[in-house]
Amino acid sequence: MKRVNIGLLGFGNVGRGVWTIVEENRAELKKRSGYDVNITKILVRDINKYRGVNVPEGILTTKFEDILEDDEIDIVVEVIGGIEPSVDYMIRSMKRKKHVVTANKMAIATKGSTLLKTSNEEAVMLYYEGSVGGGIPIINGLNENLVANKIEEVIGIINGTTNYILTKMTRENLSFEDALKEAQEKGFAESDPTSDVDAFDPMYKICILSSLAFDTVVNVNSIYREGIRGIKPIDIEYARELGYVIKLLGIAKNVEGELELRVHPTMVPINHPLANVNDSFNAILVKGNAVGELMLYGRGAGDLPTGSAVVSDIISILRNRDNPLYYSKFENGTEPHELREINKVECEYYIRMTVKDKPGVLGEVCTVFGHNNVSMLSVIQKGKREECVSLVFMTHNTLEGNIRKSIEKLEGNNVVVKVENIIRIENLGME
Amino acid sequence: MKRVNIGLLGFGNVGRGVWTIVEENRAELKKRSGYDVNITKILVRDINKYRGVNVPEGILTTKFEDILEDDEIDIVVEVIGGIEPSVDYMIRSMKRKKHVVTANKMAIATKGSTLLKTSNEEAVMLYYEGSVGGGIPIINGLNENLVANKIEEVIGIINGTTNYILTKMTRENLSFEDALKEAQEKGFAESDPTSDVDAFDPMYKICILSSLAFDTVVNVNSIYREGIRGIKPIDIEYARELGYVIKLLGIAKNVEGELELRVHPTMVPINHPLANVNDSFNAILVKGNAVGELMLYGRGAGDLPTGSAVVSDIISILRNRDNPLYYSKFENGTEPHELREINKVECEYYIRMTVKDKPGVLGEVCTVFGHNNVSMLSVIQKGKREECVSLVFMTHNTLEGNIRKSIEKLEGNNVVVKVENIIRIENLGME
Repeated sequence: MKRVNIGLLGFGNVGRGVWTIVEENRAELKKRSGYDVNITKILVRDINKYRGVNVPEGILTTKFEDILEDDEIDIVVEVIGGIEPSVDYMIRSMKRKKHVVTANKMAIATKGSTLLKTSNEEAVMLYYEGSVGGGIPIINGLNENLVANKIEEVIGIINGTTNYILTKMTRENLSFEDALKEAQEKGFAESDPTSDVDAFDPMYKICILSSLAFDTVVNVNSIYREGIRGIKPIDIEYARELGYVIKLLGIAKNVEGELELRVHPTMVPINHPLANVNDSFNAILVKGNAVGELMLYGRGAGDLPTGSAVVSDIISILRNRDNPLYYSKFENGTEPHELREINKVECEYYIRMTVKDKPGVLGEVCTVFGHNNVSMLSVIQKGKREECVSLVFMTHNTLEGNIRKSIEKLEGNNVVVKVENIIRIENLGME
Repeated sequence: MKRVNIGLLGFGNVGRGVWTIVEENRAELKKRSGYDVNITKILVRDINKYRGVNVPEGILTTKFEDILEDDEIDIVVEVIGGIEPSVDYMIRSMKRKKHVVTANKMAIATKGSTLLKTSNEEAVMLYYEGSVGGGIPIINGLNENLVANKIEEVIGIINGTTNYILTKMTRENLSFEDALKEAQEKGFAESDPTSDVDAFDPMYKICILSSLAFDTVVNVNSIYREGIRGIKPIDIEYARELGYVIKLLGIAKNVEGELELRVHPTMVPINHPLANVNDSFNAILVKGNAVGELMLYGRGAGDLPTGSAVVSDIISILRNRDNPLYYSKFENGTEPHELREINKVECEYYIRMTVKDKPGVLGEVCTVFGHNNVSMLSVIQKGKREECVSLVFMTHNTLEGNIRKSIEKLEGNNVVVKVENIIRIENLGME
């Protein structure tokens, strides 16, 4: 039996998942790869910290060089996260002719080109299935299974924390703040939740997915990004009334050769499969010109699901190791692809505002929209015989720029007290 | 630019899909494989038949040997279907050192071992993603993306025709016969619908999936199979009342090392993702010990979706062609794996019967179930002040053997007029 040694960088949640899978599924991995897989060194910050997993003595180290310089280690698995020192460790590992597996979305989204260039130059493999969607095989899906397609759209719920929060808000009528607090107590959200609730995490992920889907390079900072802090229970309530559910979507579309990339809260028709993806589950919908619509649904994070992707990548490397073939994708466009600016995006919109309750107000508001070419599908006005009243609009398809011009005008108007919220609607068709 | 020539066996629905994709996505395929992909010969039965697709003159042939003996053809794509002559053509192609791509479930399910043995011996590749689930990448999923997992279950809606019929019956209250007729008129069902409605097609598919999921060989004829002819509108109605939807599921489970394989109409909880897979869509749920639950959803058949799988397989071959590595799966067990017999399967059951409407009948029926260790979760009795009355039971988890013994007893009983239907319930948990 051939044997392969693995060096693990990082021993947090995902690292322990990888360890557990390698231990528990040893027999299956042997059978399927022809190799006895062993994790022989693990890089940690503190050797004495208790981690709830038993590892043989001497396997933990605080020095990266112990792994780098160990020529019996063929594959390095990076699960530290973040950009530095992770990217540096990966590059140095590849320069020592070690194959690399990573689950690091930030590193791949921002340094993917550099990392894959190094892997090509050094003729080693770099796999990163775990970087998006945990155990959901979307990277491989785009790289291999759907390779016959022109990809038209990739749309997904790719952040479990915000989906958990939105599910709580929807089901239990909680405020954002209370749902976040509960998510934090249950370990679904971090004590600093910025990366999730302000949608940085799904921004990195949609960056990676769009690069693969459209054979290009995307500058992560040019992606339009909006988090879920502004969603109020009343918006969820109105959405329900209108037949929608609010989800944080990552959206990547190829619109006549122009790329449209955005991450924001979105109203999804209640009977669409994405509307029924709840709690911390993820789902990704791909539309290709041959396959039609395909949806992948599963656990988008967590020790074992992400570990599943990482260990499967290890097996792929073992199967392919003597054949350094087609594993580089980011290489095609060297210059980042220009994105369609947000004002040119076409959508339907939900707009909720508070206006003064007096005659002629609705007409005045509608006139402003009309002048800016925004036409209405539905209007809900709920008077309470108070000084002010809520107006809710659902528009037909229109340019975001027209919406913004209307809103600017309305905010300077003396009958509109406040534009409370604007949420984009995706009338996702799934015939 | 390197060039590869493809020989296409069969030019029906899927064959034309393959042709269309190769034509329309030529630029993408070049970019992604490094090859200019050309279909240079197509085997047909009748050269003069009009097919709605324009192909260059001279490309069609009625002689397999024209393709077999053409040494410029590196890859043969088999989309004829059935066992003979397809299997013979594939084997002879591989012996001529041609790689083979097929979408033929029957050939893979019944002759998979032989075919893969030949591909190993000849050091050529044999890919068959299109054989199950059309464009849904479930074969690759099990072979690669989930390779780190011990697979516990594969459960799926893997026949579009019956799903279309059941959806029609559910939504429009149609009888099986009327729904079938409509499916035939719309081209979703064949004029002889046996393969679909009697569940042969999904039986072949679950055979392939279980072989891959459990690293073994399965004898297709030992799979328990039950079609949808017996489903009545009233069963669908009762199911709805009980909170379920009736779907034809292919089920493969590893129960403590024993394989349980069955295809039959099944009641699925109404809020489970599988319950919401409608019309001709397919969906496959995989449960692995690392990834948890993963669902793939999409078009399970059709020219372009299946073509998507076939052409993606072609690209995989081009990428891997210099490295005849790990593409054989069926090889592991040479003897077919023994299956758990249906009487030992544990399920919940829906049982509908007509009984005489007189005192003591319910007690008598319940006593029979009780003696056979079948315990009840719900009972619905709907009296109509007629001589006979419908009794509907939903049982707790119980052995199929106990159900069968009870039914045998009840059918010989003078108060039971008829046991009308028995449908298994899968309380699919998706936390």
